[in-house]
Amino acid sequence: MNDVTGLELRSIVNADCTLTLSLEEVVLSSPASDEIIVRVEAAPINPSDIGLLLSSADIRSVRLSGSADRPVATFSVPQGRMEALQTRIGVSMAVGNEGAGIVVDAGRDAKALIGKRVAMAGGGMYSQYRKLKQNDAVELPENVSSVAGAAMFVNPLTALAFVETMKMEGHKAIVHTAAASNLGQMLQKICLHDGIPLVNIVRSAEQAQILRDIGAAYVADSTDPDFTGKLEDMVAQTGATLAFDAIGGGTLGSQILEAMEHAANRTTTEFSRYGSSLFKQLYIYGALDLGPIVTNRMAIGFEWSVNGFLLGPFIKKAGSEVYAAMRQRALQEITTTFASHYSATISLREALDPDTLKSYCRRATGEKYLIDPTR
Amino acid sequence: MNDVTGLELRSIVNADCTLTLSLEEVVLSSPASDEIIVRVEAAPINPSDIGLLLSSADIRSVRLSGSADRPVATFSVPQGRMEALQTRIGVSMAVGNEGAGIVVDAGRDAKALIGKRVAMAGGGMYSQYRKLKQNDAVELPENVSSVAGAAMFVNPLTALAFVETMKMEGHKAIVHTAAASNLGQMLQKICLHDGIPLVNIVRSAEQAQILRDIGAAYVADSTDPDFTGKLEDMVAQTGATLAFDAIGGGTLGSQILEAMEHAANRTTTEFSRYGSSLFKQLYIYGALDLGPIVTNRMAIGFEWSVNGFLLGPFIKKAGSEVYAAMRQRALQEITTTFASHYSATISLREALDPDTLKSYCRRATGEKYLIDPTR
Repeated sequence: MNDVTGLELRSIVNADCTLTLSLEEVVLSSPASDEIIVRVEAAPINPSDIGLLLSSADIRSVRLSGSADRPVATFSVPQGRMEALQTRIGVSMAVGNEGAGIVVDAGRDAKALIGKRVAMAGGGMYSQYRKLKQNDAVELPENVSSVAGAAMFVNPLTALAFVETMKMEGHKAIVHTAAASNLGQMLQKICLHDGIPLVNIVRSAEQAQILRDIGAAYVADSTDPDFTGKLEDMVAQTGATLAFDAIGGGTLGSQILEAMEHAANRTTTEFSRYGSSLFKQLYIYGALDLGPIVTNRMAIGFEWSVNGFLLGPFIKKAGSEVYAAMRQRALQEITTTFASHYSATISLREALDPDTLKSYCRRATGEKYLIDPTR
Repeated sequence: MNDVTGLELRSIVNADCTLTLSLEEVVLSSPASDEIIVRVEAAPINPSDIGLLLSSADIRSVRLSGSADRPVATFSVPQGRMEALQTRIGVSMAVGNEGAGIVVDAGRDAKALIGKRVAMAGGGMYSQYRKLKQNDAVELPENVSSVAGAAMFVNPLTALAFVETMKMEGHKAIVHTAAASNLGQMLQKICLHDGIPLVNIVRSAEQAQILRDIGAAYVADSTDPDFTGKLEDMVAQTGATLAFDAIGGGTLGSQILEAMEHAANRTTTEFSRYGSSLFKQLYIYGALDLGPIVTNRMAIGFEWSVNGFLLGPFIKKAGSEVYAAMRQRALQEITTTFASHYSATISLREALDPDTLKSYCRRATGEKYLIDPTR
């Protein structure tokens, strides 16, 4: 086959404190022996994609230029944010963590995949064509569409990583925040299936209902006046000593650790000046609140740990066998446990449209966009 | 030998929101076969002792009653602090983590210790006599006085635990805060001896001088206008990825993690949206600031951990061999590396004197009190 030419969404930070999104024409040379070229049919917009796409740019400052077919969106980046972006300046970056599509060309060792539908990980998926190693792709079953298979990696593997972490580190129940999210719903389904108690923290009655509808037994609404007491009860009932927090900034993580400490002290009759001997683990994996993490250490004793959590380092730590099993489960349950629902499907061009862009950047619960680069 | 009677300093929290310190007469029955009775000659007042002694009581509210020989000091406890003290209410607690003295009686298996001078751990050392298992005591060399041997456990073992933690967790240098403290000076001496780079953070030029006088190569003064830059330079030069923080509340711990992240990014040319891949560990072991820990997570990537640190759980994790070696080293270097200097020696009665009490509760750098219960 000849070289393949297609459009690719690119994000670049410029030295003049701007960030530019554009569609660039790229030429893919013939695949190496272990490579495939995929015509991308579907790629979700995950919160982590928005982080790379727009970084610290001010979304309201968007200015559109270029042509209708090849729009260019330019944003201002606050001066104070530029230092952290030094290594991005002038580097045109491809975006899109995961996607799915049809294999249109393959190297010598991957010929069997030609014509097959695959799910892919590895970045640069907001493209008409993507060349990658066959090991970074998974063949989808016949009955699974690209839309259904596009989000097989980020959320499913993260939710499964939470459960694996629980097992590896010897906990028996989990607390999760922003729990009605796409990821949170997957986690609840896994936990129901595997018999793992999960305490869901949400921020509205509507979100609580989403989780109850899929069978959640423990849902605490942080807008409830008795949130603290209810959370503590649920932590005591489940014995949860592990939490995954999507929010990060503020005091919610600390409140969870405090609930765990209080629950531990309920069964203690002897005074310990250093707090309970119960080890409490909080992982921060998301950044819905960019502010500082505020930990009330006087209320949680000394037996606690607060850590950043990222899928990549977890996979390294867990090892290839655990990772293979996680991928296998994600594939098997892609249309059930790990089904994603999209509120809109857009083209590459539309991803640069100011109104559409503001809309998918809202990250509202239940709202998730899909890019279809064939449109 | 007959029963031994002596005075013991006791702290009790009362349901009426008060805390009382008193000297109680206690009778020690004959020691069991593996026990000894020690006439306590010296017991230091460590910050951790003050925590148990006075808890959340308001020091300024002190009211003295009782007799000159048996004074009673009573304090108010703020209502809001009482919940955390529920399990202390009505429990008369002995105080004093460590001390030294002469063995005056011993059970069948410990007779060889009679007349010997020992260092002790295990609490209740602010007493004229203390009964304990011989395993909780260490015989001091002939030339070591009780004053010199009284503080063999808390600070020396904590400082040694920092170094052991560094080795166990694969770091190669350490950052320490409130570094001119008694403990900090010990840590600097250990690190100089063992060839471990140590970055000392202090809060005044005087404290910096204390450390330079014992040979410190890296001292950063947080009151220096260029503190941030200097700290970052020192972290980069030493490759420190591990910090022990005595302060806890506020942003200093986060500033250390940020310095580590910046130092890591100095050598990076490629943009990583998740920050550096350098793992950064902060342990909070002290509580000079009781406020919340404020962690600026947007400036430290995802590869970080903030934990409480306490000697007891560390020893469990490290195992008995490591612990035995640490104790042995503390004993061998008790008059050199681990020498403590006291600004005043007081009697048990004086420990309840309002002015003296306010003075030793100030926890000023270089000020450390010793109780001599024989006075």
